[in-house]
Amino acid sequence: MAGEAEGLTVEIASSAAGWGGRAWGLLERVRSRAPLVQCITNFVSMDLTANALLAAGASPAMVHSLREIEDFTPRVDALCVNIGTLSEGWLPSMQAAAAAASRAARPWVLDPVAVSASDFRMEACLGLVALGPTVIRGNPSEIIALSSACRARDSKGVDSSHESLDALESAKSLACRSGSIVAVSGATDYITDGKKVIAAKNGVAMLQKITATGCAVTALIAAFVAVEPSNPLEATACALSIFGLAGELGLEMARGPASLRVHMIDSLHGLNTNAVLSRVKISVVS
Amino acid sequence: MAGEAEGLTVEIASSAAGWGGRAWGLLERVRSRAPLVQCITNFVSMDLTANALLAAGASPAMVHSLREIEDFTPRVDALCVNIGTLSEGWLPSMQAAAAAASRAARPWVLDPVAVSASDFRMEACLGLVALGPTVIRGNPSEIIALSSACRARDSKGVDSSHESLDALESAKSLACRSGSIVAVSGATDYITDGKKVIAAKNGVAMLQKITATGCAVTALIAAFVAVEPSNPLEATACALSIFGLAGELGLEMARGPASLRVHMIDSLHGLNTNAVLSRVKISVVS
Amino acid sequence: MAGEAEGLTVEIASSAAGWGGRAWGLLERVRSRAPLVQCITNFVSMDLTANALLAAGASPAMVHSLREIEDFTPRVDALCVNIGTLSEGWLPSMQAAAAAASRAARPWVLDPVAVSASDFRMEACLGLVALGPTVIRGNPSEIIALSSACRARDSKGVDSSHESLDALESAKSLACRSGSIVAVSGATDYITDGKKVIAAKNGVAMLQKITATGCAVTALIAAFVAVEPSNPLEATACALSIFGLAGELGLEMARGPASLRVHMIDSLHGLNTNAVLSRVKISVVS
Repeated sequence: MAGEAEGLTVEIASSAAGWGGRAWGLLERVRSRAPLVQCITNFVSMDLTANALLAAGASPAMVHSLREIEDFTPRVDALCVNIGTLSEGWLPSMQAAAAAASRAARPWVLDPVAVSASDFRMEACLGLVALGPTVIRGNPSEIIALSSACRARDSKGVDSSHESLDALESAKSLACRSGSIVAVSGATDYITDGKKVIAAKNGVAMLQKITATGCAVTALIAAFVAVEPSNPLEATACALSIFGLAGELGLEMARGPASLRVHMIDSLHGLNTNAVLSRVKISVVS
Repeated sequence: MAGEAEGLTVEIASSAAGWGGRAWGLLERVRSRAPLVQCITNFVSMDLTANALLAAGASPAMVHSLREIEDFTPRVDALCVNIGTLSEGWLPSMQAAAAAASRAARPWVLDPVAVSASDFRMEACLGLVALGPTVIRGNPSEIIALSSACRARDSKGVDSSHESLDALESAKSLACRSGSIVAVSGATDYITDGKKVIAAKNGVAMLQKITATGCAVTALIAAFVAVEPSNPLEATACALSIFGLAGELGLEMARGPASLRVHMIDSLHGLNTNAVLSRVKISVVS
Repeated sequence: MAGEAEGLTVEIASSAAGWGGRAWGLLERVRSRAPLVQCITNFVSMDLTANALLAAGASPAMVHSLREIEDFTPRVDALCVNIGTLSEGWLPSMQAAAAAASRAARPWVLDPVAVSASDFRMEACLGLVALGPTVIRGNPSEIIALSSACRARDSKGVDSSHESLDALESAKSLACRSGSIVAVSGATDYITDGKKVIAAKNGVAMLQKITATGCAVTALIAAFVAVEPSNPLEATACALSIFGLAGELGLEMARGPASLRVHMIDSLHGLNTNAVLSRVKISVVS
């Protein structure tokens, strides 16, 4: 809420007008600039991800062939890599695109979907983290697993204590080791660079009953970071809050998860100043 | 309807309270246990399938890489294999997952989409049937084609009479040869283990105007069998009826196939005791 | 509009009753014949494409494995090839299916999505154009890029003037060189065989905020050409207008892009004579 923003430190004085104003400003920038967001994502989420980006005003491009990375990735404004339906065939494209984005100084965002489902997935993810994503967004169990594996890799051993760490501590640890902004989604989303922690509290529980909402918000983060590359921490918090707010507004018209999905995208498309200024709930935790 | 269930034999005495109660009990079990259902399915149906599973209370996992099967499949509660957009690259994963599920004593369900579209598809399907699916669900033409091919393979010849068999006889024959429960979808769904035949009569014709509803109900069968592995015959009937009932309720709010899809998923998510007890239409045919 | 059709030349006397009647006649034919349309399309659009075809009365088949082309493609009524998520693995299937469709005298339609995104994509597209698509449909920038590349290839050089050509001239040039009907989507859609030009003016701007609407209308063109193979120019115009009209009717009920998508498909399914006769806006430009 706007009031909560008033105690912010100098570094984020740009948000002195309140987080609502900050979020609205970035949304307007996405709408006016229509950043081109390349998504190498999973088969389940492509539809919702593309539609969420379009509804927010961004321009999605689902381009994944290894043959196209060199030509295409340097021309995009941001890249989103999502390992939801990972396979050996797609991994080299993800790696090449991440490297190309880094070379071209384009922000890129990683969604480590179900990272602990297999050793293959974890290894792939650790390799992608090593390529330096601007932002990593996952649910608590994904961030805990990934953070723990990063730590284990660094220590060349197994850290048996990792299960006792909660997701926020894991996120901070992962952010420190990776140099990435790390976002943990939940009833409250936490976003951290390893030191600062921001909380975003918009959203509704029923979003978890719709497939690919996590994937979609990761792509939205890419769009927001594309128009605010110098402050991915705040851009990520704003994207999470805007998406959650669209869910809140959508729920007011919904009868269940499928109509929520429809109304959420409609709401994201129609978000206006009033709703954003009055309902964005972001605060600085530390 | 509840009344029709009263003549059931001792083996299915659990349904003495009526099929509505049986279906409701299984739905509640899906909601409380949230079975993890791995889906190796086609590109068209992934979205609807994942959302149908979520709406029913299950937990979908679209994991298809051959590199992940050994790690992941033994941990799932059920597996759904659907050949809708089959390719050479995916077939080994389907085979490996089916074998891994069998080894781990996990139920798995096969949807032989468009099995007669090509020799490649038929051969792939026969190979999967040989791996012992718990349930096979298809439309009449798919079941007739698959049953006939199984028979032809067994007899090392061509059975020219197969075209005169209707889908139910084909289903019974396929069930006997494969050891699987076989379900044929239609205005009335028939479910058989080769001897017993159960009919499920919920559903609406307009579901056929929505892509992937067949795929989605096959995945729902996997979720139901996951929570009732000892009676896949009844679990399959209940899943088909529950899905059809969601379609009936959805149609009451729909203006066409796309809004039916939305309202059907909403209805599946919101199904309550009254609707299930009063409207499930399952009966024992033989 | 019907009035505009009255000045048509003898060749298209069948449309003397007006373009509305022509479009309605073809839609009725799609509904009654349910043409089987094979789609080798991108991952993002499969769901919407299949649902649009079903809503119009056609029968979609997403079959893309190279192993199935020889068996399956000769049996379809039309083929739709869309390079949206092109990869090396899928290109041979697209080429084989295009060739098989041509051999079997089946119409096939090409959607050169984002053709200028990479050299790989352009080369693939030029190769597909050389296989003789019945219709090519794209947005202005795609048609301009593809037309220019065709011209450059023919002249063994670079035509530096291509950027000054507008999409319609590019479309005519591409049509002449390829022998295909070329359709350019926009606020007004233009359809040309290189000489005649038809304009279709149905549709709403918000369709651009829904992913895959272009892909879906290309598949609908395939369905319409399937039932009117002798006149792909008119069939293409009618398909574009019918799809746009469904969008107009959908918008009357929509609150944003996601509900527009739902209502558009519902409207396509429910289109009646009155709406089509009174609202189809097709005219002959030259």
